[in-house]
Amino acid sequence: MAEHVVTFDVASGPVAVPTGALLTEAARLAGVEISQPCGGQGRCGRCLVQIANGGVRRRSTLRLTQADVQQGFALACQAVVEGNATILVPPQEKVERRLSTDRTAAKVTVPVGYDYGRHQTVRRIPLTLNPPSMTDQTDDWSRLQLALRQQAGLNDVHTSLAVLKKIGPTLRQSDWQVTAVLDTIPPPIPPSPHPGLLENPRLSAPSAFYSPRLIDVYAGHAALDAPLWGAAVDIGTTTVTVWLVDLVSGEAQAQAAEYNGQIERGEDVISRIIYASKNNGRAEGLRRLVLDTINGLLETVCQRVKRENLASFAPLREPSPAEIMKVSVVGNSTMMHLFLGIPAASIRLSPFVTAVNSPPLLRAQEVGLCIHPEATVDCLPGVASYVGADITAGVLSSGLDDSDQVSLFLDIGTNGETALGSREWLVSCACSAGPAFEGAGVVHGMRATRGAIEEVWINSQSYEPTCRVIGGGRPRGLCGSGLLSLIAELFVNGLLDRAGHFDPTRPTGRIRSGEHGLEYVVAWASETQHGRDVVLTAVDVDNLLRAKAAIYAGFTVLADSVGFPLETVDRVLIGGAFGQYINVEKAVEIGLLPDLPWERFHFLGNTAVKGAYLALLDHQARARIEAIARRMTYVELSADNTFYDAFTSALFLPHTDSGRFPSFTPSLALLLAGGGNSPLPPRERG
Amino acid sequence: MAEHVVTFDVASGPVAVPTGALLTEAARLAGVEISQPCGGQGRCGRCLVQIANGGVRRRSTLRLTQADVQQGFALACQAVVEGNATILVPPQEKVERRLSTDRTAAKVTVPVGYDYGRHQTVRRIPLTLNPPSMTDQTDDWSRLQLALRQQAGLNDVHTSLAVLKKIGPTLRQSDWQVTAVLDTIPPPIPPSPHPGLLENPRLSAPSAFYSPRLIDVYAGHAALDAPLWGAAVDIGTTTVTVWLVDLVSGEAQAQAAEYNGQIERGEDVISRIIYASKNNGRAEGLRRLVLDTINGLLETVCQRVKRENLASFAPLREPSPAEIMKVSVVGNSTMMHLFLGIPAASIRLSPFVTAVNSPPLLRAQEVGLCIHPEATVDCLPGVASYVGADITAGVLSSGLDDSDQVSLFLDIGTNGETALGSREWLVSCACSAGPAFEGAGVVHGMRATRGAIEEVWINSQSYEPTCRVIGGGRPRGLCGSGLLSLIAELFVNGLLDRAGHFDPTRPTGRIRSGEHGLEYVVAWASETQHGRDVVLTAVDVDNLLRAKAAIYAGFTVLADSVGFPLETVDRVLIGGAFGQYINVEKAVEIGLLPDLPWERFHFLGNTAVKGAYLALLDHQARARIEAIARRMTYVELSADNTFYDAFTSALFLPHTDSGRFPSFTPSLALLLAGGGNSPLPPRERG
Repeated sequence: MAEHVVTFDVASGPVAVPTGALLTEAARLAGVEISQPCGGQGRCGRCLVQIANGGVRRRSTLRLTQADVQQGFALACQAVVEGNATILVPPQEKVERRLSTDRTAAKVTVPVGYDYGRHQTVRRIPLTLNPPSMTDQTDDWSRLQLALRQQAGLNDVHTSLAVLKKIGPTLRQSDWQVTAVLDTIPPPIPPSPHPGLLENPRLSAPSAFYSPRLIDVYAGHAALDAPLWGAAVDIGTTTVTVWLVDLVSGEAQAQAAEYNGQIERGEDVISRIIYASKNNGRAEGLRRLVLDTINGLLETVCQRVKRENLASFAPLREPSPAEIMKVSVVGNSTMMHLFLGIPAASIRLSPFVTAVNSPPLLRAQEVGLCIHPEATVDCLPGVASYVGADITAGVLSSGLDDSDQVSLFLDIGTNGETALGSREWLVSCACSAGPAFEGAGVVHGMRATRGAIEEVWINSQSYEPTCRVIGGGRPRGLCGSGLLSLIAELFVNGLLDRAGHFDPTRPTGRIRSGEHGLEYVVAWASETQHGRDVVLTAVDVDNLLRAKAAIYAGFTVLADSVGFPLETVDRVLIGGAFGQYINVEKAVEIGLLPDLPWERFHFLGNTAVKGAYLALLDHQARARIEAIARRMTYVELSADNTFYDAFTSALFLPHTDSGRFPSFTPSLALLLAGGGNSPLPPRERG
Repeated sequence: MAEHVVTFDVASGPVAVPTGALLTEAARLAGVEISQPCGGQGRCGRCLVQIANGGVRRRSTLRLTQADVQQGFALACQAVVEGNATILVPPQEKVERRLSTDRTAAKVTVPVGYDYGRHQTVRRIPLTLNPPSMTDQTDDWSRLQLALRQQAGLNDVHTSLAVLKKIGPTLRQSDWQVTAVLDTIPPPIPPSPHPGLLENPRLSAPSAFYSPRLIDVYAGHAALDAPLWGAAVDIGTTTVTVWLVDLVSGEAQAQAAEYNGQIERGEDVISRIIYASKNNGRAEGLRRLVLDTINGLLETVCQRVKRENLASFAPLREPSPAEIMKVSVVGNSTMMHLFLGIPAASIRLSPFVTAVNSPPLLRAQEVGLCIHPEATVDCLPGVASYVGADITAGVLSSGLDDSDQVSLFLDIGTNGETALGSREWLVSCACSAGPAFEGAGVVHGMRATRGAIEEVWINSQSYEPTCRVIGGGRPRGLCGSGLLSLIAELFVNGLLDRAGHFDPTRPTGRIRSGEHGLEYVVAWASETQHGRDVVLTAVDVDNLLRAKAAIYAGFTVLADSVGFPLETVDRVLIGGAFGQYINVEKAVEIGLLPDLPWERFHFLGNTAVKGAYLALLDHQARARIEAIARRMTYVELSADNTFYDAFTSALFLPHTDSGRFPSFTPSLALLLAGGGNSPLPPRERG
């Protein structure tokens, strides 16, 4: 048998392989590591290489575009050596980036053109005052106000008693050189130029303070480019996320997320409302739980600033939470009510009304946040009982409201909130999906942090899984994207049937009888961090199916309700606290996402916290959220049985009506037959 | 000797007396009680009677005007029976009213034309809301705001988190019929039409909330004329006064006063500032002390409403302090700082600057007042370190700023604050008088309450005193007017010399050696409530002389500083917590007040609390106080030695320069000689 010399650019030397060998075999001989999470089935696309020259034949062009082929790209597991060849192995991260769906929008980047002086309402102003004298006995506060007027053009500044107590001593100890920190929230903007479908009367009610508010005054002059801290907070039913933001640079310097401490009192908003409505003490208990979570996260992000910036040479010191001057808060309406201690009972009972959709501006100490006591707490506006500020913020950060294209926006969290619309119109709905996709309510579920399995590939012969673990070490559990990926792989490989039942007849020891019925072992105890098997149980599968069914039913009923054909949606914008990678193919396979061309999908990460971040940074973005809240029409899904019927139909893999997934069903057959075309149209992007 | 029949209208029958008998003797025989506090010297005027017909000769017309004589009035102790006569004895209160200087202005009366709807900022509004439905899912707060807009014309209503928590349950438990209580403070008024001498930059700074603020929402509709409670609070250095006001009727329903609990930490503002400046704990301690005093008084006035209205048939129930929705607070600048917990140290040190002259509007719970936690606390504006809100409020209630006449305004309290001016101009000054005229720092001093001696007459032969006691029972001590009266009587009767030293050679057992040197016994132990002698000591006299000297020096130096001759002042308006009666004659005798015609003097009572009351009732009055604060020029007395020299000269009775008291000095001689004209021009009023 003829031998050919194959040279990998990253190897120490060439290797000889016989005709017909796969490039993956050649790579192994050459000591080149090429990942094959799908087990060499040509499905995952992770073994991408570029053929510089030579005799290599592609057994399949699965996962490759025409352009890819023209540029010499091939999947190593599907590439047969037929002559001498030189192979370029792209860096793994490049392959990853190419393979993952468009997540560039999910990156945290400072908005283009962010200008602290123009966009930020929190301002730090150095002032030099004329000291008083026997001929100028103006009181300290008037003197400071005069300086703010003359040196910063700020009129009508007001402040709290706490700051008034501090002014006199601070002015004197600093020899009349001080730095004032103010929140200069502009007056309410005139109604949006986009006429809303439903005028929200809330908007005519301004918050309590619009004139500049002095938050604090410090001795001496702070460096102009020193950080000035703010925080964006997303209170999810399951997960709370906090970003610490330097308002001067606009950069999110640290992030942290944690399960909402209220989980122990109920997994979804309804059970929490019921719990809280029993008596005031319980409502207060829930408030304290989420406050503890948020305050803990605020501590954490402050500590992380130092650690995360150790590499840089910036003279950053670890800030104290007391230096945080403003917080923008989002969350669904129930979370906002419970956070503020406002009774939420009416949210649960027909006609499903909130106490307040748009809370006034508050101060940290009223709310109980352990930051600067006078810091502004801006709870962003929601729309209805089940479309809260997390959605208005999500719509903002997704850009849905600012585009001529019609977009479907899905926030995949405990509440399956959905918005559909464009610059011209906006509708929304919500349904309870449960916390499964956030890793909660699932035996080995966890948040998308270090140790979480975020992607799984199952070998179609051996049924052995290959897992991608966040941080790269041993796994501890499965996060949302990992669960989604696992369900899809189990289904595609026949380990789960369409109703979501495990097939115990498959020849693998990984399907076994556990405490809660059948289960699949994703990782054996010997491979895990904690020394216990990581499994997916039948109950977990059921929870996940219910979650995906609710979300799917939500957006389909919403689209139907406005008579908009889902297949003509220009973009599907997906928010949610998934891991680093989410695979559209798999999400469509299980029937979570509609069967649309890949390029229409955009994973945006945590859109809620990102919207809070944008509103924190820019008062124009803040005003845009107001406009979104005003424009958005809420569609009540519980009005008739339509939603329930849609939900029931969606409880199958991918759906009872497989006609809704035309690109998937035949391709699955092909795939299982071991070749042919992609189960989804090839990606057309470059 | 001829006998004559004398008939008193109030007696059971006529009596017979010999020629030459005094009417007082006839009255005694007839069993008619006629008071003679001056011991029948014809000085006090309290034994006034009217001769209906018959032979009575006036031995002296002292205390009587020509009109009095024409109408048949006579002093019984100076009226000699020379024939049958019929005598009318006017009710004692009529005599009192006639004798006391003009105090009608000191009466608490609702301002003429007070209209709750037009003048009051606190409003109670019954609302009927449309309940939510599946087709109207507006949130509760927006729904309430809409009702306020549609049913009360109130836009931009804002509220606190505490009220937001309450709205939902209240709306539902009351079947969407609620009563809203708001403070609808109007926006800042444009600058006064009267150009000020000194523009105060403070005024361009509005308070924190100008749009209507929802204080609370209650289930059901309150009766429209049910009381709506507010309080006016005057924090004196020595005495704190609280009025409880029904904002609907405008009536002050109850009053109470108590010594400021801070007295134990220092008698004057300077010693309190020094005490507070030692450390924060002490400042906080002082704050708590005055808060306790105020909170106690707020409890007291609430309890008194019921008691004081038992006689009437109004269905009044005793209100709870939690029903008080607004408080206007006045006090000198130090008191305001200590009350709010704002460091006051700079007030004491050159250049004598306050931290804040015009505190922002605050809420009761921030301040620590135990009333409705969301009640507005409006600390009225002051002018300077030593001319506080008590003076601007006093000027307001005195009407000084609204008159073409030039008035001298004296607030006789611990700080001798003085204002001089008219509609056109306004100057002010302050000096430390000490608390003597409030009964503090004097061995048997007390506030002007039940048991306080408020007036004293000493018989010029026996040196025995006659005392008028507030409430009419046994005395416990001496209040300010009693002390003033006593000093004057001691001086006029030669028991005190011009330097204020007791004369131990006078033949009376009432001057004796006590613990603190010589003293005069005003009431023996057997006559008092507590069974101890009530005395005036040499130290007390010294304190009182220093107080009167400071006040006298203050207004004379102030008048000099603007070149305005004191004798051309149109009115002398006197504020201070004196008792029911104050005798101008005696106040001039001791050199406290300038020697001017009686009719120019007007005793206004506690002008500070009255100003707070007016500002509480009427937002236009509140705006006028702002204008007063802006217009008033503060004259610093400590700038040179002028004040000290004037003070030293005034430490004598009545003054080292007796030429300043022309009407007094000769008349004293006449008086002591036992007859002649009045020591002061007869009252010319009818």
